[in-house]
Amino acid sequence: MRDDLPKGFAAGTAQAAFRKPGRPDLGLLVSEKPCVLAALFTQNLFCAAPVQIDRAILKAGKPVRAIVANSGQANACTGEQGLRNCEKIQSLLAVDLGLQPDEILLISTGVIGAQFDMGKWGLALPDAARNLGSQDAEGFTRAMMTTDAFPKFASRSLQLSGGEIRLCVMAKGAGMICPNMATMLCVALTDAGVERKAWQGIFSRAVNKTFNRVTVDGDTSTNDTILGLANGASGVAVQDQEDLAALEAALTEILDKVSYMLVKDGEGAKKVIHISVKGAATDSDAELVARAVGNSQLVKTAIYGGDANWGRIVNAAGYSGASFNPGEVGLVLCGIERFHDGSPVNDDKEEELAALLQQSDVDVKIVLGRGKGEYTLKASDLGHEYVTLNSDYRS
Amino acid sequence: MRDDLPKGFAAGTAQAAFRKPGRPDLGLLVSEKPCVLAALFTQNLFCAAPVQIDRAILKAGKPVRAIVANSGQANACTGEQGLRNCEKIQSLLAVDLGLQPDEILLISTGVIGAQFDMGKWGLALPDAARNLGSQDAEGFTRAMMTTDAFPKFASRSLQLSGGEIRLCVMAKGAGMICPNMATMLCVALTDAGVERKAWQGIFSRAVNKTFNRVTVDGDTSTNDTILGLANGASGVAVQDQEDLAALEAALTEILDKVSYMLVKDGEGAKKVIHISVKGAATDSDAELVARAVGNSQLVKTAIYGGDANWGRIVNAAGYSGASFNPGEVGLVLCGIERFHDGSPVNDDKEEELAALLQQSDVDVKIVLGRGKGEYTLKASDLGHEYVTLNSDYRS
Repeated sequence: MRDDLPKGFAAGTAQAAFRKPGRPDLGLLVSEKPCVLAALFTQNLFCAAPVQIDRAILKAGKPVRAIVANSGQANACTGEQGLRNCEKIQSLLAVDLGLQPDEILLISTGVIGAQFDMGKWGLALPDAARNLGSQDAEGFTRAMMTTDAFPKFASRSLQLSGGEIRLCVMAKGAGMICPNMATMLCVALTDAGVERKAWQGIFSRAVNKTFNRVTVDGDTSTNDTILGLANGASGVAVQDQEDLAALEAALTEILDKVSYMLVKDGEGAKKVIHISVKGAATDSDAELVARAVGNSQLVKTAIYGGDANWGRIVNAAGYSGASFNPGEVGLVLCGIERFHDGSPVNDDKEEELAALLQQSDVDVKIVLGRGKGEYTLKASDLGHEYVTLNSDYRS
Repeated sequence: MRDDLPKGFAAGTAQAAFRKPGRPDLGLLVSEKPCVLAALFTQNLFCAAPVQIDRAILKAGKPVRAIVANSGQANACTGEQGLRNCEKIQSLLAVDLGLQPDEILLISTGVIGAQFDMGKWGLALPDAARNLGSQDAEGFTRAMMTTDAFPKFASRSLQLSGGEIRLCVMAKGAGMICPNMATMLCVALTDAGVERKAWQGIFSRAVNKTFNRVTVDGDTSTNDTILGLANGASGVAVQDQEDLAALEAALTEILDKVSYMLVKDGEGAKKVIHISVKGAATDSDAELVARAVGNSQLVKTAIYGGDANWGRIVNAAGYSGASFNPGEVGLVLCGIERFHDGSPVNDDKEEELAALLQQSDVDVKIVLGRGKGEYTLKASDLGHEYVTLNSDYRS
């Protein structure tokens, strides 16, 4: 058991060569105590086989003990056989670990539409079980990586009225990122003890403010899953309102940190665009505008090139589907006002702006009118490297 | 008056150096007789000043005589001053041509948010008026080009019961292309005589089947405008149902031809993706799926790279918002079935498919279920050249 995982959790990995040999592509997380589960899943109609399995476990509401993760194959769009393969993995692992099959969750990422090679699973699962405790958060995260340039994880401790607890978040994701009520593969662990309903509430609100507010390419994947496991191994039960609020704030902070890393590592991305929309009639209108701007290829390529072509941002707001009065709209780019009450600001700040656009984080503030609706979104830029990576991802 | 324009229409151009010197960037089209106008405009809330002017002219319902087009500046997001500049152009031109200001339509394309340099307009407008008749359809189309790699136009004649008429369509567009009830700049001319309501009906249906079914980057622009002018100079009045149907079929055919050119010239595009969705519960569901697939960066980059990564196509269908049963979905890529009733087709056709994906036109056929809803969409791929063009469009 390594230091940065919360108490009572152990991780192991194996090299199964699901897609390419010579790297860990199977990760295992086991809790010594039963865990309370909270989870959110993709809204994609083609949700992957592991998503269907996990959703059933969440619905049953019983404690869980382990998560098995793999990269290389997404096990999505694989029909009945995909589900049978998940169940086979649960059975094999249940024997190795002395658990019930329905205490084991699965998360998968990789190519859509390919069936698992169960021979490889049969060889690699005992390996991962054998080295349980040898890996830290980084090790487990690396086993989930595909086109990720770096592993995304963070951990922290938190002092509550009953004592200290730990939180750890591990995620993967670089492309096909536009989480919708869930994210790419992500696991959040805590050794706090929390009641199931409270934990799911805290979890849903925290994810909604963080992972659900990032986009790389607007493609919501078949496998988006975020699992939150609380095993109570710290001996600290989180019950009173103040402690619950502190846990939610800490979880939100750490999820925000890791979701930022996801955008930062958007395939080939050089910059993170921080979009803030205010003054909308409703939060939904603000969200429509933020998403249209954050997913616009023209905005993303302009930011990539350091071009202060702000008209593309306003254009995206205009076709977003949100209702507003164009004559009340304003735009501030990197702290410099470019558009005010529907008219351009004519000053000579192009050079100053060009310098600011070279930075790795770019601020886009949009005011839609006089309403109270608002939304924030983090988006990656779009460069040559995205095209290179995605025009031959499978090879 | 040049041969490929319908009878009674004349074109002229001028070099105003709106953005760069040394190329025609102002085009003028004048009809010797009053024209019946049909038109469709962008749904973007930030519709450009010329769109607002043209919309008012369409609403007034009076005959029109001329169109002035420019590239270099879009005159969008330019507030009150943008509208005043349009009116100034109408007044200047009305004097030069002996027309009323409200008989003159405007269409603009270029950078959003910059005000016109009216000094340049004042010098160039008389130039264009002086050389009226010197340009053919290609000449006028070239004056509207921005990042277009080639001019997009087509003309044809049509034998009706009362005699022969001509049709000519001229369009510009390469980026910011996702027409929504309209298109990028496009002018359709005919020397047929048609009653106003019948002409708008024919025009709307033809545009809906053609220009409204193409996408390059999913960005619906501030300036999308398609104008249809019928001047009756052929002496042929189109009145009976058979003639009206023949005119609609011919217009649809020629608009389809030119809208295909738009996708073909999608910024940096190498391939046209022909997406067909059938078996949906409704046409709207089929459209949602077609648009999600056609605008998916991951689908577009895979097709660009010739990668038969069909899972990305199915994934986009899954997040499109359409309702369907994943277990009934099928996919045929370039004539080869990859997905059937929700499960992958396991055969060894990768090499065959790789060869087919090298062609310039790629067929994607999706069956969603057993319903009667269907839709087709033409989309461009997404390559390095798009990023290059759009990361420094303004410079």
